[in-house]
Amino acid sequence: MLTINPKEVSIPVLNSYLQGAVAPRPIAFASTIDKEGNVNLSPFSFFNVFGTNPPTLIFSPSRRVRDGSSKHTLDNVLEHDEVVICMVDYAMVEQMSLASCEYEKGVNEFQKAGFTEGVSVMVKPPRVAESKAVFECKVKQVIQMSEEGGAPNLVICEVVLAHFSEDILGEDGKIDQTKTDWVARLGGDWYCRASGNALFEVAKPSIHKGIGVDAIPDFIKNDKSFTGNDLGRLGNIEKLPTQDEIDLFIKMQTHEDYNELAKILLKEGKIKEAWMALIYSNGYKSGSAD
Amino acid sequence: MLTINPKEVSIPVLNSYLQGAVAPRPIAFASTIDKEGNVNLSPFSFFNVFGTNPPTLIFSPSRRVRDGSSKHTLDNVLEHDEVVICMVDYAMVEQMSLASCEYEKGVNEFQKAGFTEGVSVMVKPPRVAESKAVFECKVKQVIQMSEEGGAPNLVICEVVLAHFSEDILGEDGKIDQTKTDWVARLGGDWYCRASGNALFEVAKPSIHKGIGVDAIPDFIKNDKSFTGNDLGRLGNIEKLPTQDEIDLFIKMQTHEDYNELAKILLKEGKIKEAWMALIYSNGYKSGSAD
Repeated sequence: MLTINPKEVSIPVLNSYLQGAVAPRPIAFASTIDKEGNVNLSPFSFFNVFGTNPPTLIFSPSRRVRDGSSKHTLDNVLEHDEVVICMVDYAMVEQMSLASCEYEKGVNEFQKAGFTEGVSVMVKPPRVAESKAVFECKVKQVIQMSEEGGAPNLVICEVVLAHFSEDILGEDGKIDQTKTDWVARLGGDWYCRASGNALFEVAKPSIHKGIGVDAIPDFIKNDKSFTGNDLGRLGNIEKLPTQDEIDLFIKMQTHEDYNELAKILLKEGKIKEAWMALIYSNGYKSGSAD
Repeated sequence: MLTINPKEVSIPVLNSYLQGAVAPRPIAFASTIDKEGNVNLSPFSFFNVFGTNPPTLIFSPSRRVRDGSSKHTLDNVLEHDEVVICMVDYAMVEQMSLASCEYEKGVNEFQKAGFTEGVSVMVKPPRVAESKAVFECKVKQVIQMSEEGGAPNLVICEVVLAHFSEDILGEDGKIDQTKTDWVARLGGDWYCRASGNALFEVAKPSIHKGIGVDAIPDFIKNDKSFTGNDLGRLGNIEKLPTQDEIDLFIKMQTHEDYNELAKILLKEGKIKEAWMALIYSNGYKSGSAD
């Protein structure tokens, strides 16, 4: 391992490691206004949701690493305590990047980046009409951690109204993750797109707790052909199948190599079936791990 | 657009929309200890970096939506003000998910999930030895926003020592984004993997500001075959090429359809060349957008 003491490296070097490691980061495309009503639009990836009650989004227009100067977005939320946070999908990413240019104060990045100003309902700053998820927010608190370059500025926001495009909703009216195509920031110039092969599902552990990897018998744990993900899936079963279940399962099979069958079943997320194949194949006495 | 007023829907419904929209979220796999030294390991996707000076990570073990109860991780950081935050790659994801089971207080999720405890250098909680980026942190402040279900609890951490596996470093010693394979949380049971086709680069706008989409001539803006991303790239040029540059460029070309050529060049990130093809093709007087 490369070990880095933050006090012993420069801020830009530290910044590079933090941004490369804490990733992918969601992007807040933040629309704000100053006290004269001039609009600013700028993206921030030091951002996330932190809870639902109250619905809390936090982003950090951190002080510039090179000179400690503050960004217009920070100045604006201190002058007018509202912000509209718009999510960014792949179709918007080049225009969003253009909006991150350091244009002079008073320049409207909606115009520079070619986005459409949509009227907000409960706050004054406009929304990005092209964005498929929009949060109208009140700024509850701004915590400025120092005035040095790279200093975090926590803009703590409460969502007062949210808008979601029908384009990203499923038939049940909920957000369909296969339709969003959100983009997220990584380190350097890199981004990541949440679509296609990059998406996968992991069934949430049942409220009845998995037996755990520590309860998996050694003949499996010591078999190096099982990956950590295989062991994680096997450990997530609540209890092992009974001998009757195994007997019935085996009667239905035509497969010959039950260890191989178990690996296929694991990949398909059929955890109980994988256990039945493994127990039968290895003559393990079912119930021992209960 | 579907419009939702947070005060008019249930917390679980609101939670589902927030998690589906604010995504992909990086994952903090947090190792903590209670005052007796019992270890806890649990993943949190209400998490991000917020600045470099001081190096600040914040995660939220929010109160459970169903009953407002607090998580062991929150109890632990209030008893012992240190945490080791480990990043999660694809190879660890099923075991990480298993660690999110609600095991009884005192159960060590390193053992249940089959991870190896690595000794930390500057803090007491152990690190996940399988993790390829590890942050040893002091907890500077815990902000509990309420005691209701879904309430955010901000655990504000300062990184005191960081470790990075050689597996994710490039030849320059920096993190190579194509090697990390980080995973991030989306809504529901969905995750996203930062690797393969999901990765892409967008060159940061130059410090010399792009001309902006508003300065792109109408013959391009009104041509619906250009996407928003095409316009964003074109607007990101600092100034248009000169007539001499265009003449020289055209002499070197064998392509016949310069509008088509411009689109190919844009896809390749050759912005200036795309502009030269477009200006030549449309008889636009270069320099007019300066």
